[in-house]
Amino acid sequence: MKMTKFITPEIIFGNGSIDQAGDSCLRLGAKKVLIVSDPGVIEAGWADKVITTCEEAGLSFSTFFEVTTNPSDLEVQKGSQRYVENECDAVIGIGGGSVLDVAKSIAIIATNGGEIAEYEGVNQIAHPLPPLVMISTTAGSGSEVSQFSVIVDSERKKKMTIVSKSLVPDISITDPLTLMTKSSYLTASTGLDVLSHAIESYVSVAATPLTDVQAKNAMKLVSSNLRPSVASKTNEEAKLHMAMASLQAGIAFSNAILGAVHAISHAIGGRFQLAHGVINSVLLPYVMDFNLIACPKRYKEIAKAMGKDVTGLSDEEAGREAIDMVRRLSKDIEAPQTLSALGITEDDLPLIAEDAIEDACMITNPRDISTKDIIAICKQAL
Amino acid sequence: MKMTKFITPEIIFGNGSIDQAGDSCLRLGAKKVLIVSDPGVIEAGWADKVITTCEEAGLSFSTFFEVTTNPSDLEVQKGSQRYVENECDAVIGIGGGSVLDVAKSIAIIATNGGEIAEYEGVNQIAHPLPPLVMISTTAGSGSEVSQFSVIVDSERKKKMTIVSKSLVPDISITDPLTLMTKSSYLTASTGLDVLSHAIESYVSVAATPLTDVQAKNAMKLVSSNLRPSVASKTNEEAKLHMAMASLQAGIAFSNAILGAVHAISHAIGGRFQLAHGVINSVLLPYVMDFNLIACPKRYKEIAKAMGKDVTGLSDEEAGREAIDMVRRLSKDIEAPQTLSALGITEDDLPLIAEDAIEDACMITNPRDISTKDIIAICKQAL
Repeated sequence: MKMTKFITPEIIFGNGSIDQAGDSCLRLGAKKVLIVSDPGVIEAGWADKVITTCEEAGLSFSTFFEVTTNPSDLEVQKGSQRYVENECDAVIGIGGGSVLDVAKSIAIIATNGGEIAEYEGVNQIAHPLPPLVMISTTAGSGSEVSQFSVIVDSERKKKMTIVSKSLVPDISITDPLTLMTKSSYLTASTGLDVLSHAIESYVSVAATPLTDVQAKNAMKLVSSNLRPSVASKTNEEAKLHMAMASLQAGIAFSNAILGAVHAISHAIGGRFQLAHGVINSVLLPYVMDFNLIACPKRYKEIAKAMGKDVTGLSDEEAGREAIDMVRRLSKDIEAPQTLSALGITEDDLPLIAEDAIEDACMITNPRDISTKDIIAICKQAL
Repeated sequence: MKMTKFITPEIIFGNGSIDQAGDSCLRLGAKKVLIVSDPGVIEAGWADKVITTCEEAGLSFSTFFEVTTNPSDLEVQKGSQRYVENECDAVIGIGGGSVLDVAKSIAIIATNGGEIAEYEGVNQIAHPLPPLVMISTTAGSGSEVSQFSVIVDSERKKKMTIVSKSLVPDISITDPLTLMTKSSYLTASTGLDVLSHAIESYVSVAATPLTDVQAKNAMKLVSSNLRPSVASKTNEEAKLHMAMASLQAGIAFSNAILGAVHAISHAIGGRFQLAHGVINSVLLPYVMDFNLIACPKRYKEIAKAMGKDVTGLSDEEAGREAIDMVRRLSKDIEAPQTLSALGITEDDLPLIAEDAIEDACMITNPRDISTKDIIAICKQAL
């Protein structure tokens, strides 16, 4: 085992924990907070909750509520201006991955200046960020614990992956009650995104025992709780377990990084207005199929974590069971099954493959991969 | 599940990671570091290694190398003077739990002033500590990741437990190669200490899924690697796994706290010059026996984590198997089996029980406990 680093934020988890938002900023020395969110989260009332806790903590605040599904450098620019003009000194993000990624990127510009594209890649951030409190409302992205921010370059139509320890929030808040306002469609796709985080980080070449235990527990939790969570908006227990799964998968992938599912998904998300979780959920079983021969033992562990009795099965047989379990789960919760259902055609694949092969997440994929392989995987998924 | 908080330092793990000591301090903005250690660690050459990395990083340093087995407030006082007189601005601890606990307590006094006894209990530290880099050389204490410091009050002859988020180091370094210079006796007792951390945090009333996964993996690793690690100083693989077990158990107990083993062990350690790990290793099976009826399902999981096939066993039967496995492990590695072997007599028990019942670790023990119960447990262990 090579030398490894492992970082997590301070984590606050549990029903009602959103009430800690204002106090958390106060603890970090903030006086005026920029609250970042999006229209869906505002409509559900969660941004208002955060505002109330800031007022109760005696904090001033400004807001930037215009985040979209695949947020671009232009949104980051606009949000950073808001931060500077209003003389803010801390950032709260309340929402899904898009919101949190924008909130983090605003924080980069706030203390480092320039344009967000300058920070693409690994460890490009020189100056410490202002205090960051990230509140996840989706049980999906993992951005609330990760050292990642993914932002679309609006000119190049490409998702830029920014990786830095500085992007790990100071405080991460996960309130499972926020999951009760999500549509079943969003619950399904973000839930499969959690599974893709867990599986990709578990088979990553940078996996360690510290990330493995988190990833395996996340798989177990998704396997038992995603169906009931999709089935009922008010199933509190299922939401609680899915929120924990998201957190654990986030800790795993933030430290072990991801693989081809995310690399291809970033390439697609840069060019098509599609939710990240939906693209991942389509790609996951196809990429698993491709990667199986790289680490069959690990695939057997995935099957076990998902609840399969693998007694008497070879590693490869158990691995194929794992892939079947992912497919069945995806079908049961009526997630989209093909890329063509998302509007992608064979003609799009060469450009997608070209972008995907360059993505930072591809480095940790367990099987060597070429643009030809990526096109082949996507063709199967069409 | 109640609202929970989870904190870990930045973790650097792996063979050779001790070389990161100087750079880690530099990253945290240090200019002059106080290096804290003890004679055994110096003799093994590890403190010199750290000094070299500080020199290479261009840092000035002072040293405080006089830490003893159950360090007292007097040592903390002396170390703090060294810190202030030499105008240090960061602390490195390199050693076992005693060294790291003293290093952290010096840091408390450095920025908060006064005497260490003023900080006993939970959350008594008002001002942020200087940068802390803690390097573990024992695969035992967990202090390198925990929010604890345990210091003997030399007047009251009592261990004071100091608990605060501020005590979580900024950077925690675990280099498994440092375990190769430990005696088999120390390897045995610190290894059983790891097991006691894992088991106590797993059955703690404050356990969460985030701590459970770490605790269970630590049990699994100890169960397969402690025997070979005691058997051979140069078994690199066993040392690596024991170092990881220590780290994971440390993350678990820092966030889920401990139980009666540690409460009683602190009481004994305050009055007798005995290594913490040795006392824990004697107490563990007896306390497990007492606690079994509080959470038999969890005990079954302990047996499973330790590698037992529990098919067909009731929770209680499997739990008793877990206790037997702990006893067998302790006997196989020739750890002391009784308190009388450590020089404790029946007459000592009332005072020990009186101190133990007040210890902060007792709050999270899964079974209600009285001084009478503590005396009964210790009598069995005599």
